[in-house]
Amino acid sequence: MISGLAHIAIVVPDLSKAAYLYKNIFGAEISDQLDLPEHGVSIIKVNLPGCLIELLHPLGPQSPIQKFLDKNPDGGMHHLCFNVNDLSIIKNATQDKIRYLNGGNPKIGMEGKPVLFIHPKDMCGTLVELEEH
Amino acid sequence: MISGLAHIAIVVPDLSKAAYLYKNIFGAEISDQLDLPEHGVSIIKVNLPGCLIELLHPLGPQSPIQKFLDKNPDGGMHHLCFNVNDLSIIKNATQDKIRYLNGGNPKIGMEGKPVLFIHPKDMCGTLVELEEH
Repeated sequence: MISGLAHIAIVVPDLSKAAYLYKNIFGAEISDQLDLPEHGVSIIKVNLPGCLIELLHPLGPQSPIQKFLDKNPDGGMHHLCFNVNDLSIIKNATQDKIRYLNGGNPKIGMEGKPVLFIHPKDMCGTLVELEEH
Repeated sequence: MISGLAHIAIVVPDLSKAAYLYKNIFGAEISDQLDLPEHGVSIIKVNLPGCLIELLHPLGPQSPIQKFLDKNPDGGMHHLCFNVNDLSIIKNATQDKIRYLNGGNPKIGMEGKPVLFIHPKDMCGTLVELEEH
């Protein structure tokens, strides 16, 4: 039901420095910085073979990742995002008490596609984003 | 220089429950549990399209992931592991002051291959394992 790993999101205290490290140590392809005020983040995409890393930094006072950076001032892995064909199938796939953020209502994510987040308490401490393709 | 994502390692408080969730919600293929006392972990592999997740739980009193679980009792993402062709090229690729764990000396990892870990303080808070293939 999962069709692939969309990205690994990593919150960092310094976007340029982080991008430099991924480029310099690993030879990654680095995007320009994108500011997404409607999502409260600035982002640089790091393309590695078979794997997209999204480096995130808070943008604006209401950023949803500011608390994470306050708790993890060195930065850290924030969430995993998987591609799915149909969010509703995933959402209804289980009889278990899985909670989704935003009341289980998909939002439009940073890629302009519908997304849902599973509550990390219900996914063994990992915040998982599902992106509909 | 990175040839791919080897795995995403997630420490969990209950291996069977975590594996059940990945199988039940996402349709993942789940391995049997492997106990690796020489590494201080029990492991279940979660195969998703294009992505291998390794669920880890401490094994024995000297487990290197016990402190992580104490700090994160719900579990959480522990490290990323990338495939590289040659550890020494990666290690010497940068003029930056990147510190490697174990004094920069490769160890034999859980897959029986040489591995090196980059200090998370030098990689924006992310523990990165490099596995030589």
